[in-house]
Amino acid sequence: MTQQFLDLAYKEAQKAFLKNEVPVGAILTKDNKIIARAHNLIETKQDTTAHAELLVIQKASKKLKTWRLQDCTLYTTLEPCPMCAGAIIQARIKNVVFGAHDTKGGAAGSVLNLFENKFNHQVIVTYLNDPKCSYILKDFFTHIRRSKTNLL
Amino acid sequence: MTQQFLDLAYKEAQKAFLKNEVPVGAILTKDNKIIARAHNLIETKQDTTAHAELLVIQKASKKLKTWRLQDCTLYTTLEPCPMCAGAIIQARIKNVVFGAHDTKGGAAGSVLNLFENKFNHQVIVTYLNDPKCSYILKDFFTHIRRSKTNLL
Repeated sequence: MTQQFLDLAYKEAQKAFLKNEVPVGAILTKDNKIIARAHNLIETKQDTTAHAELLVIQKASKKLKTWRLQDCTLYTTLEPCPMCAGAIIQARIKNVVFGAHDTKGGAAGSVLNLFENKFNHQVIVTYLNDPKCSYILKDFFTHIRRSKTNLL
Repeated sequence: MTQQFLDLAYKEAQKAFLKNEVPVGAILTKDNKIIARAHNLIETKQDTTAHAELLVIQKASKKLKTWRLQDCTLYTTLEPCPMCAGAIIQARIKNVVFGAHDTKGGAAGSVLNLFENKFNHQVIVTYLNDPKCSYILKDFFTHIRRSKTNLL
């Protein structure tokens, strides 16, 4: 199931790409059922907190009518940043699965590891090396660079 | 001005207290003018991301119509947690002023210091020791313990 859910998170990333958003997507599940889906919407909403992971947590909390998501798993195409890692810990999410490392901003081992710290809750973090999750980002930034060059 | 703005953040914390929310408040200013005010609403909204700092960033972005808050100062009664510190860095906020340390969850020096890491943006962080900001929290938790004891 893990790969299938990550594939669905990737579909969310594709939706972000089509909106000219950095392509990151997330899925939140409980008992192997999808509770919420979301993708990055920073530019659309002009809100820096509109990361896929934060939005999926907010949507799931609304659906489940609780901020406590302790039996849930969050799938994200990209390693969570400090903001999202912090939100995951606070929501008491049980498992996090991510498909690509973020060497510049990742808070699950790349720049630092927030999940190693003792914040009263332990999250099980799995890195599932999924090339398409990093490739879509590379593709997006190449696309942006090309657009900028064409404008010169 | 710094103390006056922190006093206003404290007023927000008092509003949270009256709603049975952990009393934390925040103010966001630009050119010494208040752009947004917010207080913790986790229980009311059943949303773990509804911290005072995150809400004040969201409100300010909406008002200023941009996610980039680089000339802004965020005043908060309590040291930001990792989620809020991460959001502050991403929003490119220039200054953060806080009135009380959070020894269990603070990400501005107490448990760890996210502002020391290199996330492409440097925030100037000021700790303004303001006893009322920590006292209101102590008072809130004493109040909660008493209510629980009375229920036994």
